[in-house]
Amino acid sequence: MDPLLLQRRDDRGVVTLTLNRPQAFNALSEAMLSALGEAFDALAEDPTVRVVVLGASGKAFCAGHDLKEMRAEPSLEYYERLFAQCTAVMLSIQRLPVPVIARVHGLATAAGCQLVAMCDLAVASHDARFAVSGVNAGLFCATPGVALSRNVPRKTAFEMLVTGDFVSAEQAKVSGLVNRVVAADALDDEIETLVASIVAKPAVAIAMGKTLFYRQIEVGMAAAYADAGAAMACNMMEPSALEGVQAFIDKRTPDWAKARATRTRDAL
Amino acid sequence: MDPLLLQRRDDRGVVTLTLNRPQAFNALSEAMLSALGEAFDALAEDPTVRVVVLGASGKAFCAGHDLKEMRAEPSLEYYERLFAQCTAVMLSIQRLPVPVIARVHGLATAAGCQLVAMCDLAVASHDARFAVSGVNAGLFCATPGVALSRNVPRKTAFEMLVTGDFVSAEQAKVSGLVNRVVAADALDDEIETLVASIVAKPAVAIAMGKTLFYRQIEVGMAAAYADAGAAMACNMMEPSALEGVQAFIDKRTPDWAKARATRTRDAL
Amino acid sequence: MDPLLLQRRDDRGVVTLTLNRPQAFNALSEAMLSALGEAFDALAEDPTVRVVVLGASGKAFCAGHDLKEMRAEPSLEYYERLFAQCTAVMLSIQRLPVPVIARVHGLATAAGCQLVAMCDLAVASHDARFAVSGVNAGLFCATPGVALSRNVPRKTAFEMLVTGDFVSAEQAKVSGLVNRVVAADALDDEIETLVASIVAKPAVAIAMGKTLFYRQIEVGMAAAYADAGAAMACNMMEPSALEGVQAFIDKRTPDWAKARATRTRDAL
Repeated sequence: MDPLLLQRRDDRGVVTLTLNRPQAFNALSEAMLSALGEAFDALAEDPTVRVVVLGASGKAFCAGHDLKEMRAEPSLEYYERLFAQCTAVMLSIQRLPVPVIARVHGLATAAGCQLVAMCDLAVASHDARFAVSGVNAGLFCATPGVALSRNVPRKTAFEMLVTGDFVSAEQAKVSGLVNRVVAADALDDEIETLVASIVAKPAVAIAMGKTLFYRQIEVGMAAAYADAGAAMACNMMEPSALEGVQAFIDKRTPDWAKARATRTRDAL
Repeated sequence: MDPLLLQRRDDRGVVTLTLNRPQAFNALSEAMLSALGEAFDALAEDPTVRVVVLGASGKAFCAGHDLKEMRAEPSLEYYERLFAQCTAVMLSIQRLPVPVIARVHGLATAAGCQLVAMCDLAVASHDARFAVSGVNAGLFCATPGVALSRNVPRKTAFEMLVTGDFVSAEQAKVSGLVNRVVAADALDDEIETLVASIVAKPAVAIAMGKTLFYRQIEVGMAAAYADAGAAMACNMMEPSALEGVQAFIDKRTPDWAKARATRTRDAL
Repeated sequence: MDPLLLQRRDDRGVVTLTLNRPQAFNALSEAMLSALGEAFDALAEDPTVRVVVLGASGKAFCAGHDLKEMRAEPSLEYYERLFAQCTAVMLSIQRLPVPVIARVHGLATAAGCQLVAMCDLAVASHDARFAVSGVNAGLFCATPGVALSRNVPRKTAFEMLVTGDFVSAEQAKVSGLVNRVVAADALDDEIETLVASIVAKPAVAIAMGKTLFYRQIEVGMAAAYADAGAAMACNMMEPSALEGVQAFIDKRTPDWAKARATRTRDAL
């Protein structure tokens, strides 16, 4: 049996996760949510990982929850547990210390659209389409709306949530849901430019920066600055930043390997 | 005497409110604010209402407060009471359990622009123009700015507030203040597509979803998810969602009437 | 020796500050930060100031911190003090009772991009380019990210922060980082239209409005409205607003000088 979630990794630490239930449009069954959650948890502990790309097999990115499974056992306790499990997986994307890039083609609906919104970055092919369409079945996409309303303007999010209508990849870009839109056959190259840019930076700066980014955005500006200033002072004391800034002054390429060695030696 | 606020309703529960003081560009006199507040309060209690469309008679949508009335009795207590009344009306739009769609033509200035910003959705004709122009008369549009700054990017809102300049319907769409812009003679058809989409969904899902949307957007992401997950689990236990999801699985149209009957029977 | 910060003022109270360290791309050395901080503090106390324009000499707007100076004395305490000083300068822009307009040409990177984001308004020439590029040297632009993420959509900010890539003036406008983009030789004229619009309004309304704007945006909607309603009632009791509203009713130009005289007399 094919695994629900494919995982491959290159020698740079770039991990590609592929939702692999194409016959069900990669619906997020409990088993799929568990596979995703376990994968994110393992990657969070692995210091050799640098970037995660989240894509999907077949014609769609992800059609959201597995409605057949969800309908089979109707109880409040079950639904509470299911949405809590889904939320935990979604939040683990933001808690990963490396950037997560959604690679979106075909449809991304309901919790599938939520996955895109929760990723740090998203690149879509021209054929990608986005909807929070639960309302068509009488189930308002409340949890996807949490992520969506933090990506796009308020009225745009509200319209998508009450109509359930699809928006095109271009509209998703204009509203802030995805970073870039390209032809389907250019999708991997476009993602590679983001990946290459990120892996060229020190992991420690990216990890500190991502964590700080989501923490500071939730508080007032003065508190955000206090937090960010302290984090940035720590970052500056890292061997990589000291080397990077010195290299900038010397007009040469930074020697990140040497900085990493210094850090490891200092830590011993 | 013509009523200040016209109200009509179709057999789907679509209520159209029309500001009807065209000779004064539908300025929000105390009487107009009272009429609006009373209308919203009554609609909030009426379970047969499904959507509210808020439009206006004459050449303008709404020119904001009635300055002549406002200037006649200058006292701090009066102005505090007036703005508190206005705020209560504005907040009652968001507290209505059904979507409110602004139907905007001509000018929408000051508290008129605020009305648009407070509606859940807005459709404008090409001739519509928006401004928070109180500052031209020395009165900074502080309360309109609360709504505006939650619709459009920060610098866009600030520019409108300190210059008092008009922005076009197209600019309003780009910045997020309105959802759609169409020719004046297509305004009603465009609104009808939104209305038809909304009334095709179960009222209970829309009501839960709207309330949750504005509640979750004001808190941190983890708290928002906890709230949304609980709300969505409740929503899923509704007969309409159980029917809607089953219909999706069966590839048939949901029978909302049957679901409503089940709900009514269970409630007895 | 040329001063680090040039200052000129016209008879309307329009103050132009010019970062004047062109050979170092106007890098924010400690001395430059002190000069900026002292200038903002003095302007904050001066009731004759109406608008501040912040521009720069030479080929760039501002390249951020002075990395040579920063690298010379590596200690956590020093960096904490440095970022705290920088934050204080940045926050003093928002605390000024008059609008601050960034006049941006050439590159605006790291804390230079942050300056643009912290200004109330920004006008850029077509050649302007923006980046939060610290990450290229291993130093994540944490504090610039505080300002940036409150100007542009979340995924746009994240991409800029982890890639360090430049965005064009046009992209900066689309995402909300700048208000307007014009040809380099039209930059001063475009800023003058904003300046002229602002100085035509009563200073007291602008001061109250700016302060309220940044205060209300950080709280929930109900609290924001309570604050804004009280502020607006006070504003309406100002002689300038009473005169401005009366002039609107009378269809004449407001006599701000008379209103100012009334205010001064009442204050005695």
